[in-house]
Amino acid sequence: MHELTRTEAYALSGLSVACLAVLANAWQSDGEPLFASFAISGIGYAFTYALIRWTGDVFIKRGYKGRDLSKKNAVEIPEAMGLVCALVYLLAVVNFLPFAFKRDIAEVTAQIGSKDRVLEAQQIETGRFLHRFPLEKLASYGFAYGTLASVTILGILDDSFDMRWRHKFFIPAFAALPMLALYFVDFGVTYVVVPVPLRKYVGGELIDLGGLYYVYMAAISIFCPNCINILAGVNGIEVGQSIVIALMIVLNDFLYLSPTMHQPHPAAESHLFSIYLLLPFIGVSLALLKHNWFPAKVFVGDTYCYFAGMVFAVVGILGHFSKTLLLLFIPQIFNFLYSAPQLFALVPCPRHRLPRFNARTGLLEPSVATFTADKPLRPIIGEVLKLLHRVKLLRVQADEGGRVTETSNFTILNLWLVWRGPLREDRLAMEILLMQAVVGLLGLWVRHSLALLLFTADNRF
Amino acid sequence: MHELTRTEAYALSGLSVACLAVLANAWQSDGEPLFASFAISGIGYAFTYALIRWTGDVFIKRGYKGRDLSKKNAVEIPEAMGLVCALVYLLAVVNFLPFAFKRDIAEVTAQIGSKDRVLEAQQIETGRFLHRFPLEKLASYGFAYGTLASVTILGILDDSFDMRWRHKFFIPAFAALPMLALYFVDFGVTYVVVPVPLRKYVGGELIDLGGLYYVYMAAISIFCPNCINILAGVNGIEVGQSIVIALMIVLNDFLYLSPTMHQPHPAAESHLFSIYLLLPFIGVSLALLKHNWFPAKVFVGDTYCYFAGMVFAVVGILGHFSKTLLLLFIPQIFNFLYSAPQLFALVPCPRHRLPRFNARTGLLEPSVATFTADKPLRPIIGEVLKLLHRVKLLRVQADEGGRVTETSNFTILNLWLVWRGPLREDRLAMEILLMQAVVGLLGLWVRHSLALLLFTADNRF
Repeated sequence: MHELTRTEAYALSGLSVACLAVLANAWQSDGEPLFASFAISGIGYAFTYALIRWTGDVFIKRGYKGRDLSKKNAVEIPEAMGLVCALVYLLAVVNFLPFAFKRDIAEVTAQIGSKDRVLEAQQIETGRFLHRFPLEKLASYGFAYGTLASVTILGILDDSFDMRWRHKFFIPAFAALPMLALYFVDFGVTYVVVPVPLRKYVGGELIDLGGLYYVYMAAISIFCPNCINILAGVNGIEVGQSIVIALMIVLNDFLYLSPTMHQPHPAAESHLFSIYLLLPFIGVSLALLKHNWFPAKVFVGDTYCYFAGMVFAVVGILGHFSKTLLLLFIPQIFNFLYSAPQLFALVPCPRHRLPRFNARTGLLEPSVATFTADKPLRPIIGEVLKLLHRVKLLRVQADEGGRVTETSNFTILNLWLVWRGPLREDRLAMEILLMQAVVGLLGLWVRHSLALLLFTADNRF
Repeated sequence: MHELTRTEAYALSGLSVACLAVLANAWQSDGEPLFASFAISGIGYAFTYALIRWTGDVFIKRGYKGRDLSKKNAVEIPEAMGLVCALVYLLAVVNFLPFAFKRDIAEVTAQIGSKDRVLEAQQIETGRFLHRFPLEKLASYGFAYGTLASVTILGILDDSFDMRWRHKFFIPAFAALPMLALYFVDFGVTYVVVPVPLRKYVGGELIDLGGLYYVYMAAISIFCPNCINILAGVNGIEVGQSIVIALMIVLNDFLYLSPTMHQPHPAAESHLFSIYLLLPFIGVSLALLKHNWFPAKVFVGDTYCYFAGMVFAVVGILGHFSKTLLLLFIPQIFNFLYSAPQLFALVPCPRHRLPRFNARTGLLEPSVATFTADKPLRPIIGEVLKLLHRVKLLRVQADEGGRVTETSNFTILNLWLVWRGPLREDRLAMEILLMQAVVGLLGLWVRHSLALLLFTADNRF
């Protein structure tokens, strides 16, 4: 398990060498940040792939391990391997910086060179003579890095110390503090554009949300990681959904950069920032997916879910497209709302809600919550459940008296199995990811075409 | 152990309330960063103090624990509690940012307000309209935060996974990458001022070290954390020495800010940056010292040593006074050089080199490495050891034939015990810290008076 096969070793080395060549070439020609970002993501993929293989045993030895309940023989496999992703990712982002700014450095240096060639000792002491530098971009990278490093720390603590659910829920908000502080200090923009139909009530084109805007951003930072964390329980689904979301955001980013657009688009810098943060994320996540896909060799841990969610929150908030971001989370939002009755204990919630593995068929079936005579369901809730059963949003069993005795658990995975019948684990994961991709594409289409009805202009044009 | 006493609870609450009042007041009057920094450090102290008490049992439960070998009954106490320090510290730095920049925000907003009161939707979309903002300061904070969060992650991994010494040694260099990337992108200054006596050889006032300068900075980042890590083994010594160094740097910083100086000094900003990063560090460290001082209730772990060392590396490098910084590490440098023969296995090195606890007297004595007949010392090395014994830099035992049979271990703590005779643990720690303070003050005096002989001017004037 802990050695790379010869084929893997050759493939990964080949990929790395090719990427290094691209990188060296990019460095020659003013940095070429986009090519450099692709190349660094490739190296990140290779490095993550190998590290996951090499360090799995160490994780198991230190107690980061778990059994896969949806397999015929449930051997122990390493847990919390998302940590490896997060570390390689942070390394990748740092190493990308010189490429991101090489052109600016060259420009500024050239200006200084032509104006006064004499460097004074005083300048050396105080250090800074690059005052025409795009420092606002640089600060964003610094704080994005700080936020993601923080969420990694908190993820490790969560995976190490088995925190309680009600504590865990707010963890991402702490990690988001560096980003919120940056927003406060640097942008400070808490105005939002009011949709046209509402302007007559609000009395203007812009409305200042003030402190509420920070609450909104904190909510995004709490929401993204947690909703990835609860759409889980099947091999590959945490990583898979994160990759789909990341690809959608990158697609949206490229819409702002395409040559058919009036260039340079004012939001181009924000969207480049988003691309540069997401490409290495996709790289390290693909490597994790290779090990976490059915049948899983490793688990990803809460670290990965927090980390992935926070990457999206960071690019959405610092890139100023947090509303678009939410459009790409529709399946997760649905899953959260659908889960709410069990999360908030309106309907009894069993310890695990992941789909039930039928060892005889090897397929997954909806898992159920059962209600015995001594712990019956309240009649009014029973009626609601039966209604939901009729519109095919649940599968409910009732006894002769019409009393509900069991219901499928309230997760999108179980609902999908109610609709589609028993499925093999990888089939289920693949169908959910496809559904997510279709919904996401629809969301983007709506955002760029219907936005014209609500606002005076789609900001893409 | 895990509850605060009533006195402690009152004292900490009182301190917190007072600090919050200062903070609220500072916010009213343009932020007042220096007062805000003091207040936040006070809150950091209270918070760390309480958290260490509350979380100790959780650390023990999760396996972060150890026995104090220098006590009569060696009970298990929590290990790696420096992690709590690091987390509170990161939180403190983030919460300080709005205070650090409030004056700048107010200024910039006022300028914009007077020029054009109309905010355009376009500005909201791209977000940034504060272009006259001191963003270079902001970027420094972001990357300092990122570096310290990274070293915290690596510290946790070290304390969790029991890494090998030769891997551990280079860990801090990885954590320093964000800082080096910032330096590359933002400052890019790799010139150093040449001392006057050397100028005729170098042929100029400035010399460009180029890539070597990055090697130098990486070396500082590796050196600071590791040399705190090896001057260890007595209750309170890791935290104590870190606090002494921090206080010395703050003293040096204030020299540049005193009203007798020609104000504003060009390096004032760098030294304020250093103060703002060090005050909360001193706050959280004092709280840890209270629990780690003789007789220790908790251990600090490698996390603390890495974290503390990296705080110094960050302020030294981003504040452009890394050479001054090294003057404050003289005892640590001595300890490292003195340890080298054992670290590099010229002289056999036992597993533990901390001073030996004499259970009968309750005092610490120099621990020794012994050389038996089957593993004898090479004669030439034996002669060197005997020479060192004569100049009182070791205590060596020889048999009748003059063959060295044992030597005190090569650490500054053992050497101090050779000089001063057996001491109680807290006495030893206190004397070492006093010695360190005296040496540090001498170093600062030399730096500011003798600098005139080597350079044309002390940059303080």
